[in-house]
Amino acid sequence: MGLALKLYNEFEIEKSDKWEFVGFDKNYNNENNLICISMKKTYEYANSKEIKAKITLLNSDVPNTRGLGSSATCVVCGVLAANKLLGDVLKKEDLLQVASYLEGFPDNVTPALYGGLTASYVTDTNVVKTIKYGISDKLKFLACIPPLKISTKESRRRLPHELSYEDIIYNTSRLVNLPYAFLSGDLKLIKDILSDKMHEPYRLPQIHGADIVKDFAKSHELPVFLSGSGSTMIIIFEDDLDYSSLESLGWNLKVLECDMVGAMYEEWLLNSS
Amino acid sequence: MGLALKLYNEFEIEKSDKWEFVGFDKNYNNENNLICISMKKTYEYANSKEIKAKITLLNSDVPNTRGLGSSATCVVCGVLAANKLLGDVLKKEDLLQVASYLEGFPDNVTPALYGGLTASYVTDTNVVKTIKYGISDKLKFLACIPPLKISTKESRRRLPHELSYEDIIYNTSRLVNLPYAFLSGDLKLIKDILSDKMHEPYRLPQIHGADIVKDFAKSHELPVFLSGSGSTMIIIFEDDLDYSSLESLGWNLKVLECDMVGAMYEEWLLNSS
Repeated sequence: MGLALKLYNEFEIEKSDKWEFVGFDKNYNNENNLICISMKKTYEYANSKEIKAKITLLNSDVPNTRGLGSSATCVVCGVLAANKLLGDVLKKEDLLQVASYLEGFPDNVTPALYGGLTASYVTDTNVVKTIKYGISDKLKFLACIPPLKISTKESRRRLPHELSYEDIIYNTSRLVNLPYAFLSGDLKLIKDILSDKMHEPYRLPQIHGADIVKDFAKSHELPVFLSGSGSTMIIIFEDDLDYSSLESLGWNLKVLECDMVGAMYEEWLLNSS
Repeated sequence: MGLALKLYNEFEIEKSDKWEFVGFDKNYNNENNLICISMKKTYEYANSKEIKAKITLLNSDVPNTRGLGSSATCVVCGVLAANKLLGDVLKKEDLLQVASYLEGFPDNVTPALYGGLTASYVTDTNVVKTIKYGISDKLKFLACIPPLKISTKESRRRLPHELSYEDIIYNTSRLVNLPYAFLSGDLKLIKDILSDKMHEPYRLPQIHGADIVKDFAKSHELPVFLSGSGSTMIIIFEDDLDYSSLESLGWNLKVLECDMVGAMYEEWLLNSS
């Protein structure tokens, strides 16, 4: 599952006779740029020849390696831009296949592409399917972003190879009620539902300060969860929340809402010429 | 999760000065009768003294040891009857706690008590919570009940001690969409969602004829699943289904619908005097 939040990276893609990169770190000022890789893969999927482009990073609000899906923003940008340059030959479901393939899993690219709360699975014939759920518009999300960088791959290594039935049942019996809980907006229910035994016990200990965020949420009886594989922790609340006591952590704290739309491109292309 | 189907056991409970049992097998013509055990546990939960009763089995359509929840009918009958004799001192949530404790897990007693499609979890303070979902009224259920008796305990022994992440993700990524799928009535989606790698591969091989039921469902592109720990297999369909080709199996075949109400008692007590 994944949830789209109103936190955006913005890119400009302009047809060109060569690949060009503007505004990226030097490691990505070349064809290793994930947007470029994603565009090439989309051309390949569409059996089309490569249309090169000048790729400009306009604005980056999604930090890297914090479990907020920054790579998904590049992958989704690439598939949408390539499809636009191809004249919209591919359907959104096709773009989802390419994006999931590139990302390695559908969890992040799906909400980035569709918005909302998405639950994806892979069919026996290897097709990614997704269902998009609405959530209560009362819910707000406090993203607590620590300075710690975590790569998804590294973070996965911390997980045990196998899990006990007890822990699996603990999580899955909650998981099945997650769409309902988020739609209801019932914070007490969401708190119950997000209680986890499958990954947080293995991942939270490496995040210095996580216990302070946990305790803050607990004292306010609010749900808190690790975003992706971390390091960001997200507290869910309604109305107002005085989180000034968390400021001493030195983390980046952002109040966000759910984005029900997903990545937009047409408007952007019109504005960017 | 559990689904209530319109398949019933009917009991009559009458206040008495001693425990009496009518219509049961000789093993249950005594205080080992699960309804009696359940009534006693309910009195205990309510801190009340025992009110004895004459317990009569009027009608038994739910076969034993076939994964259709026959023990849940006795447990739920007991908690409801005891609470009635106590003057409705307990709430339904309390009855759910007693019933889940007696059954050992909430999966079967919850739909028996509430009706519908229920998803239950146990909180960290050991309270059973449940959410009841509606399902599409187009859905029908063909229960294919083999002569094979399976005890839940025995059937659990066939499961591996631990499961791989791959198989867990396969099931859980489907599971989260199960309430939506059943509400939508989309048979293709339900078929995808019910595809299982966590228990059927271990349990189906012991059921002689299961492959025939599987193949029948597959050829009709219909979802099929093992009910509980078996031995009953359930095919989901809409409109009409010609299942005459399954008759040669010699199994008991019943077309059922979802019960959205759950166990009823007041009406029954009024009718039974």
